[in-house]
Amino acid sequence: MSPIDQLLREDLRGRTAYGAPQLDVPFALNTNESSYAVPPAVVDDIVAAVAATAGGLNRYPDREFTDLRGDLAAYLSRSGTQVRPEQVWAGNGSNEVLLHLLQAFGGHGRTALGFTPAYSMHPIITATTGTTWVDGMRGIDARDGGGGGAFDLSLESAVQQVREHDPHVVFLCSPNNPTGTALTLDVVTAVHDAAPRAVVVVDEAYAEFARPGTVSALSLLEGRPRLVVTRTMSKAFAFAGGRLGYLAADPELVDALRLVRMPYHLSSPAQAVARAVLRHADTMLGTVDAIKEQRDRIVATLSGLGLDPVPSDANFVLFGGLRDSATTWQALLDKGVLVRDVGIDHYLRVTAGTPEETSAFLDAVANLGPDHLEGQS
Amino acid sequence: MSPIDQLLREDLRGRTAYGAPQLDVPFALNTNESSYAVPPAVVDDIVAAVAATAGGLNRYPDREFTDLRGDLAAYLSRSGTQVRPEQVWAGNGSNEVLLHLLQAFGGHGRTALGFTPAYSMHPIITATTGTTWVDGMRGIDARDGGGGGAFDLSLESAVQQVREHDPHVVFLCSPNNPTGTALTLDVVTAVHDAAPRAVVVVDEAYAEFARPGTVSALSLLEGRPRLVVTRTMSKAFAFAGGRLGYLAADPELVDALRLVRMPYHLSSPAQAVARAVLRHADTMLGTVDAIKEQRDRIVATLSGLGLDPVPSDANFVLFGGLRDSATTWQALLDKGVLVRDVGIDHYLRVTAGTPEETSAFLDAVANLGPDHLEGQS
Repeated sequence: MSPIDQLLREDLRGRTAYGAPQLDVPFALNTNESSYAVPPAVVDDIVAAVAATAGGLNRYPDREFTDLRGDLAAYLSRSGTQVRPEQVWAGNGSNEVLLHLLQAFGGHGRTALGFTPAYSMHPIITATTGTTWVDGMRGIDARDGGGGGAFDLSLESAVQQVREHDPHVVFLCSPNNPTGTALTLDVVTAVHDAAPRAVVVVDEAYAEFARPGTVSALSLLEGRPRLVVTRTMSKAFAFAGGRLGYLAADPELVDALRLVRMPYHLSSPAQAVARAVLRHADTMLGTVDAIKEQRDRIVATLSGLGLDPVPSDANFVLFGGLRDSATTWQALLDKGVLVRDVGIDHYLRVTAGTPEETSAFLDAVANLGPDHLEGQS
Repeated sequence: MSPIDQLLREDLRGRTAYGAPQLDVPFALNTNESSYAVPPAVVDDIVAAVAATAGGLNRYPDREFTDLRGDLAAYLSRSGTQVRPEQVWAGNGSNEVLLHLLQAFGGHGRTALGFTPAYSMHPIITATTGTTWVDGMRGIDARDGGGGGAFDLSLESAVQQVREHDPHVVFLCSPNNPTGTALTLDVVTAVHDAAPRAVVVVDEAYAEFARPGTVSALSLLEGRPRLVVTRTMSKAFAFAGGRLGYLAADPELVDALRLVRMPYHLSSPAQAVARAVLRHADTMLGTVDAIKEQRDRIVATLSGLGLDPVPSDANFVLFGGLRDSATTWQALLDKGVLVRDVGIDHYLRVTAGTPEETSAFLDAVANLGPDHLEGQS
């Protein structure tokens, strides 16, 4: 054991850091970024916002990011559920917002439950805060022959697992990453009611891409002080580089996060730039429909190729039917297409990009050869 | 107990959040910001850097902030100690860098020791990570009649306290905030050697303001893989609003922090703006001498007024000799001067600002009237 390993927290020893490859390839479709650059008019407003802020960078930022909270509340209120500024919290990416939740409501001796496979950072952030992770399962009904997809989470199965573990934090991911499908609200309310001492976090990072008829859990916040909905500007807002995640919840729960956040955690430029982008919400979200179109095209085309795509409410598609994920991942990379091996046997995940990127991906898949398919040899 | 209090981690209940007042006053001298605005030439470069970045904000930032690490290493190497990029880590403010250290090397069942009064966030960050805080003491020799100032930390006292508690993390703050005085390196090495299982963190947030002859602990890093030196761009770089803290340490220790940081924790604008400011290091540090001059003027003038200023290597002065800190704090605020009540009886802390701000503060003190002084009535 190295000297540093000896100093390290025991439970971190031997772990490897989160690490989606950051490779320079023609078609980077592995981290669910938007493939659409920020339009010039928005760039101009971002630059103007920083220009107005830069001279005063000798001063600390507004610790409570009051104006940004107002803007985020106004954006969320477009969903049809009125959200007030004091219900909103934000951080440098939704990872930091999730960290604040775990720091406040998790910790040593407490448990957080999620339904795997889901967002890979949920168990990592849980462990980072010394909270015990409970690996709940999706697709139990399908495995038991009771119907549903391999990654579906039924109300009955979710409630049963939550009751069994009585966790302090529950993660629901809707639309679920990496599998793609959104939950119906009856699952959220049932889990909430079955976990009486839990903060229930609905991670809606991909909400803006959901298929028609999908309703946000924002509509459930009223009267449920233990319910939290997290969002991000990384995906539909094409703002992954800006690092702005946020949540909506009960004002008192939000206020408790001030106990664990680092003071002044959102810089003045971070606040100014995010506000500039929010002023252009319609423009920034203007590519969502085009991305959904490519997503649906991926699902349809992969089905036609004999693969097994999972129904998606997000800007990505998880597809199965592969003999070996790692072999196909490498074969696609050799063709210049970087997708994500999310650690599920026989499956890979691909981001829906531009029409050209999607064509490149679909052409690469079509030309893989039959030995990449499961059950062929 | 409210519903949210019931959900909250037990040890957080009843706590209040960190909260230096953010008041709109003529003379804000309470958070050790630089009073000097960012000069127009630097603003131009900041704006250009953001303009070059903004179009690509749809992509995640460089997770390893490679270029920024190189620039920070080059800046630190000006101290005379060569620092390599792989020795550098950074975060959204030094608070986040300290959080990463505590997350990696602290945690439940571990202890962190600091010598109080020191930076008030050290115990808060320690508690946030579930680490047990050990409140070491400064000024023991003075209290025992053995000489030294009321806030001095002698080598013997520091070693004795560290040996007694055998902590996992030790904080040394040099120059010490809120008292102002730097440590000599023999104290750092003695503490390091007396704490064989500890990561020893020397918080040098105010290093650039130190009096001539003060040597940075950067010079001690070679051969000491458990030693860490933290810095910030908030103070001497007049960049509090930019939130960029950093550290230098052994490359393996730095690498371990990747296990606990949130992926992509530094946004593309954060990296670009910090790099722009670092390109203007000479300009940004150009006000340091002027600030030190005002600091020394504060010390001299307060002494002449019968108060008791602590020798300062920072951009602030702690001064004692007050009958009641809170009464004088309010009296100064009534005159438009906001200083910091750091919770030490009979003392207040003031930031050294521009000559005009310093004059306003000193005039306000001179006109307080004798009933504000300790031992007068």
